[in-house]
Amino acid sequence: MAILSALATEVFIPVAGVIGIVFAVVQWVLVSRVKLSPAAAASGGSKNGGYGDYLIEEEEGLNDHNVVVKCAEIQNAISEGATSFLFTEYQYVGIFMSIFAVVIFLFLGSVEGFSTKSQPCTYSKDKNCKPALFTALFSTVSFLLGAITSLVSGFLGMKIATYANARTTLEARKGVGKAFITAFRSGAVMGFLLASSGLVVLYITINVFKLYYGDDWEGLFESITGYGLGGSSMALFGRVGGGIYTKAADVGADLVGKVERNIPEDDPRNPAVIADNVGDNVGDIAGMGSDLFGSYAESSCAALVVASISSFGINHDFTGMCYPLLISSVGIIVCLITTLFATDIFEVKAVNEIEPALKKQLVISTALMTVGIAIISWLALPAKFTIFNFGAQKEVSNWGLFFCVAIGLWAGLIIGFVTEYYTSNAYSPVQDVADSCRTGAATNVIFGLALGYKSVIIPIFAIALSIYVSFSIAAMYGIAVAALGMLSTIATGLAIDAYGPISDNAGGIAEMAGMSHRIRERTDALDAAGNTTAAIGKGFAIGSAALVSLALFGAFVSRAGVKVVDVLSPKVFIGLIVGAMLPYWFSAMTMKSVGSAALKMVEEVRRQFNTIPGLMEGTAKPDYATCVKISTDASIKEMIPPGALVMLTPLIVGTLFGVETLSGVLAGALVSGVQIAISASNTGGAWDNAKKYIEAGASEHARTLGPKGSDCHKAAVIGDTIGDPLKDTSGPSLNILIKLMAVESLVFAPFFATHGGLLFKLF
Amino acid sequence: MAILSALATEVFIPVAGVIGIVFAVVQWVLVSRVKLSPAAAASGGSKNGGYGDYLIEEEEGLNDHNVVVKCAEIQNAISEGATSFLFTEYQYVGIFMSIFAVVIFLFLGSVEGFSTKSQPCTYSKDKNCKPALFTALFSTVSFLLGAITSLVSGFLGMKIATYANARTTLEARKGVGKAFITAFRSGAVMGFLLASSGLVVLYITINVFKLYYGDDWEGLFESITGYGLGGSSMALFGRVGGGIYTKAADVGADLVGKVERNIPEDDPRNPAVIADNVGDNVGDIAGMGSDLFGSYAESSCAALVVASISSFGINHDFTGMCYPLLISSVGIIVCLITTLFATDIFEVKAVNEIEPALKKQLVISTALMTVGIAIISWLALPAKFTIFNFGAQKEVSNWGLFFCVAIGLWAGLIIGFVTEYYTSNAYSPVQDVADSCRTGAATNVIFGLALGYKSVIIPIFAIALSIYVSFSIAAMYGIAVAALGMLSTIATGLAIDAYGPISDNAGGIAEMAGMSHRIRERTDALDAAGNTTAAIGKGFAIGSAALVSLALFGAFVSRAGVKVVDVLSPKVFIGLIVGAMLPYWFSAMTMKSVGSAALKMVEEVRRQFNTIPGLMEGTAKPDYATCVKISTDASIKEMIPPGALVMLTPLIVGTLFGVETLSGVLAGALVSGVQIAISASNTGGAWDNAKKYIEAGASEHARTLGPKGSDCHKAAVIGDTIGDPLKDTSGPSLNILIKLMAVESLVFAPFFATHGGLLFKLF
Repeated sequence: MAILSALATEVFIPVAGVIGIVFAVVQWVLVSRVKLSPAAAASGGSKNGGYGDYLIEEEEGLNDHNVVVKCAEIQNAISEGATSFLFTEYQYVGIFMSIFAVVIFLFLGSVEGFSTKSQPCTYSKDKNCKPALFTALFSTVSFLLGAITSLVSGFLGMKIATYANARTTLEARKGVGKAFITAFRSGAVMGFLLASSGLVVLYITINVFKLYYGDDWEGLFESITGYGLGGSSMALFGRVGGGIYTKAADVGADLVGKVERNIPEDDPRNPAVIADNVGDNVGDIAGMGSDLFGSYAESSCAALVVASISSFGINHDFTGMCYPLLISSVGIIVCLITTLFATDIFEVKAVNEIEPALKKQLVISTALMTVGIAIISWLALPAKFTIFNFGAQKEVSNWGLFFCVAIGLWAGLIIGFVTEYYTSNAYSPVQDVADSCRTGAATNVIFGLALGYKSVIIPIFAIALSIYVSFSIAAMYGIAVAALGMLSTIATGLAIDAYGPISDNAGGIAEMAGMSHRIRERTDALDAAGNTTAAIGKGFAIGSAALVSLALFGAFVSRAGVKVVDVLSPKVFIGLIVGAMLPYWFSAMTMKSVGSAALKMVEEVRRQFNTIPGLMEGTAKPDYATCVKISTDASIKEMIPPGALVMLTPLIVGTLFGVETLSGVLAGALVSGVQIAISASNTGGAWDNAKKYIEAGASEHARTLGPKGSDCHKAAVIGDTIGDPLKDTSGPSLNILIKLMAVESLVFAPFFATHGGLLFKLF
Repeated sequence: MAILSALATEVFIPVAGVIGIVFAVVQWVLVSRVKLSPAAAASGGSKNGGYGDYLIEEEEGLNDHNVVVKCAEIQNAISEGATSFLFTEYQYVGIFMSIFAVVIFLFLGSVEGFSTKSQPCTYSKDKNCKPALFTALFSTVSFLLGAITSLVSGFLGMKIATYANARTTLEARKGVGKAFITAFRSGAVMGFLLASSGLVVLYITINVFKLYYGDDWEGLFESITGYGLGGSSMALFGRVGGGIYTKAADVGADLVGKVERNIPEDDPRNPAVIADNVGDNVGDIAGMGSDLFGSYAESSCAALVVASISSFGINHDFTGMCYPLLISSVGIIVCLITTLFATDIFEVKAVNEIEPALKKQLVISTALMTVGIAIISWLALPAKFTIFNFGAQKEVSNWGLFFCVAIGLWAGLIIGFVTEYYTSNAYSPVQDVADSCRTGAATNVIFGLALGYKSVIIPIFAIALSIYVSFSIAAMYGIAVAALGMLSTIATGLAIDAYGPISDNAGGIAEMAGMSHRIRERTDALDAAGNTTAAIGKGFAIGSAALVSLALFGAFVSRAGVKVVDVLSPKVFIGLIVGAMLPYWFSAMTMKSVGSAALKMVEEVRRQFNTIPGLMEGTAKPDYATCVKISTDASIKEMIPPGALVMLTPLIVGTLFGVETLSGVLAGALVSGVQIAISASNTGGAWDNAKKYIEAGASEHARTLGPKGSDCHKAAVIGDTIGDPLKDTSGPSLNILIKLMAVESLVFAPFFATHGGLLFKLF
């Protein structure tokens, strides 16, 4: 049928995965050439430029030996703080996950009363499928596998980032270009490692499970969805826990340091500064790594489940079935080529070339990927095949499916650019927000909120259009592959995303190590570009989350045997309105948590400034450990309730109210959550960059608002502080909320279909 | 069938209406006994206490004659400003409305190609119904009638409020109880006038239209829905225009006066002070009057339309058909009795008795109304009757329907009390927000937003429960009467609502007239209670809007002949996600408008303080007129785009994408808009009262945060300012958005069903 044989597929996917991992290792080796131990640095002088040539550029009066030692010390402190926090976090999450694994096994096992006999298949009644008990077992195993992969992804990301930050600082002494390459390469290590390991683990799992399932594709991919659930559950705790940690520290540090004491950001005198830097690594890096890995795992699972009940599944067309994995494989190759454009083909020489270089990455990867998708669609798909659409059948051509993937990919780019427009201080929206600081913090907040609301419009139309077109072409499978298309360049996306916090940390280390003003300016420029790209990355994450969760929702509805989700039915409508409320409930919890933790942090930082003599003068050292402890305790304690809300809602609704109400809840949470997530992350990004716009003073207009410390700037700092939990805690967690509830419903669908709706059955 | 005969119904409804109007007039006469002209005051001494006894209580050194003259002057200025703004507003809105009336006629007329021949009825194919052309004509007429009634309601409300505010100030000299009664009586004038005139106009219209329609109930109530559309369209412009006006002035006045110049609120030296007071009357009074009148008209129309296609319509059971109007009639009587509890039976003697007195009003009216509903359900409904539910039939008992109305009524009370809990500074949520001001404005905003999000939870569950129960009992008719139940005590609700801005204005007048500190304290206490009850009123408005728009949505779906609104269909889903986006788009517009207008206002106020010599010293008068003009221009210019967004969306979606997508849009806007509306108005209310909590310093905790002018207080003022557009512009407008789009879809349903979905037909 397809041109690509099953054998070629079997070879191509793992090979692409391994290439990605090798590429990540190569990048890591290149980053590690920047030496952090002063002795080694002194003996340096490799082709990347060693100790020798930065001595020339470096400003006078600085003892290089001391600076390198200090950087290494600070890096160590950050790395240790992050590692110890993650271990604590993983302990608590581990307990939750183990309990949930038992729940999965018991609930799914009970579907056929723990019987070990084979049952007629759901879709082909004449065939026998594997017993539910074993599917329950395999689902539990894949759930744990997903959780562990996600955990390892986040942890490795953090390790790489903390490995890279001090090196970026040191490279910044040689020039902005060198620093950029170091930070970006480190981001690439994380991007490729995650994308490739996600693919490889999924691929191996499928092949191992296949040994048991054989031709029972339905059972196979049903149990594989556990992988997505595991990945996403882990991501939820990572994002929420990390998000609370980092923002409690950040808000606390800023409120006392920048606002009250008027000392710069990342000043070593600030007791919360180490906690703040640790937070960047556990929140923005580890949390985001887990999050995007979860998205990737879920969109693959959604596509695979839907494909398993198409003609691929019935005809046992292995290549066709693996189409989602093939897209990801092609994505790794495409991103690899794209990365070379940033690191080797073009060179960043000046500050104003950084943001274009990053944007070019997005455009190049999207353009190349379009070609890649076209080729793989032509090779891997039969010219015509059949998709099932809630009972009805739909003929799809390979070019049609190409179009579905491509529309997802390009919708992602559009969302990215709209996000950039609303969050970059190169355009009027952010400049207007900055201008509104003239009349104080209140108008700044009003304008910022309005900007966030407005920024929702175009992305929603882009998502709606992708949904309509891809559904019209290939029903739910079209939506699933559109989501996959949006995520196909994940390696590049993650590289860009991770680059931001690494640069941010590099700046922090420069400040703390007492390096010269010029170094700090360079890392600030890297960081400003990273701010915008981080917002773009969040846009991608949210857009893909919307598509993924719709695809998962479709798969859930199919599996639960629901034919129609009628808004006019009260069961569905109450689900819809309650579902639309959930993102608010969730955001209330996470924002309050950040607020309370920040209050404690502020009091501790104030206490230290007031009671430690010589702290402001820099003669005494602050007590960093207490601030780290405050962030750790707060995030561990506060991540459980919102996590439980998300994890338990589908279980409770499905069990008590049944699949119809649950469908309503999923649809409501999806359509409402997407809006809050986009507006929250753009509002936050805009405030942050409005503040940076005033600080940088790069235009006539900006200079009328500044300088640092002016009333306008103070108002802008307030906006920035409010935006912190919006853009880094509640906003990005919301896309996990909508995905996770959908994938969980899908995993438990057989249980809900059999035992669900207790309450309605009773009355 | 029913115990109440058709004749008795024909008598009871207008009599109840007239009683309400007479009661309003009596209250007005009682208010007018407080004399504003000094001569008359000097010759006073009526049983309400005249000039004579307040001379004793009044502080020394104040020339009473001058004070009364000054109050009268200020009142005149406010009244003139408000009148002139409303006339300007009505001119612009009038043009829009006329165009829209033509659109209605043309669109609805085109349904049967402007044929003047009778057509087979939609529901009883064997009977002939009136031609669509005449229904188009009558719809247009009822649209204009609704718009005019709404306009008159708002205008009268404003007149009453401006008539009452200076009188409340003067009565405050005699004590807090007298002032309370004056303010509350004035609110009652407005409440009863609106509720009664709404009922009477609707009743007369039905009877006049019936002369033409005869037994064609379908056609009759189809054309009557225009009344709801007219009322709501007018309300939209009133709320948005008035909201922008009042908040631009308020924010502008506060930002310069309170924050920069450190002068009290309503200080006559502030150039924006008259604009601010005018704003209270055009925004909070006229806007709110139109809004609640719109809700009332729509819920009546929704219930009538659904009833017309039930067995009442088929059996021509006039009393049964008029059940919705009968509920409103009973409501007027019940509210009349309830009002006596506040004005005559109990007496408010101390400041801390004000809020309980107002809350008692809500509880008493709800309790009495439950009895009233039970009686009227028993009298007016047959023991068993049939409701049509999207093709299927449903048997309903009169007790079942009583239960539907009652659940709506009580759900309203629950929403009211939850709102109170989250917005009154007597409870921990607002106190926590106040406490967060310790660490500055940023944490205040974070806590406030989190509070608003959290306050959504219980109201949504209450709404969901009412929907489920009332739908289960009596399908869409159940939901329609539940909405009506929530609004049945509208006269009391409006009285309480209007009481707030009247007290607020009274305080402003006291300040401007240079009256003693004690008077201001009394009006402040009245105002603080009014703040909480205003939030409660908004809670009611939003809750009822959710139910009303769902009922309208159901009626629309029935009329458009849609059997199922399936979320799994991409046409519906894209509608759902775009619909959920609309409240954000709308809020972005309105908040940005307030922000921009406030910026201009701030600059003008600053300019005046800087350029008019002697202004701060009180020796020169500010230029009030320029500030009034800024607010007027801004609101007239800025109310059109959001208004057009709401009015045109259903037309465009219905015409281009058809009824399925439109159904999705309505459902999406409903489930998403309710959340934003509740959270926005509670967040704003909480910030306002957190500030008042710090200012009042009534507890040990509050005193540690204060006093006025402390850093905490400044942070609280910033929160209050941000909350202004949230709670008084975008929040309350959102419930009009969801209702209006639903009623408009219902009016245009025959057109969309015939000619809609052009885009899908083309491709």
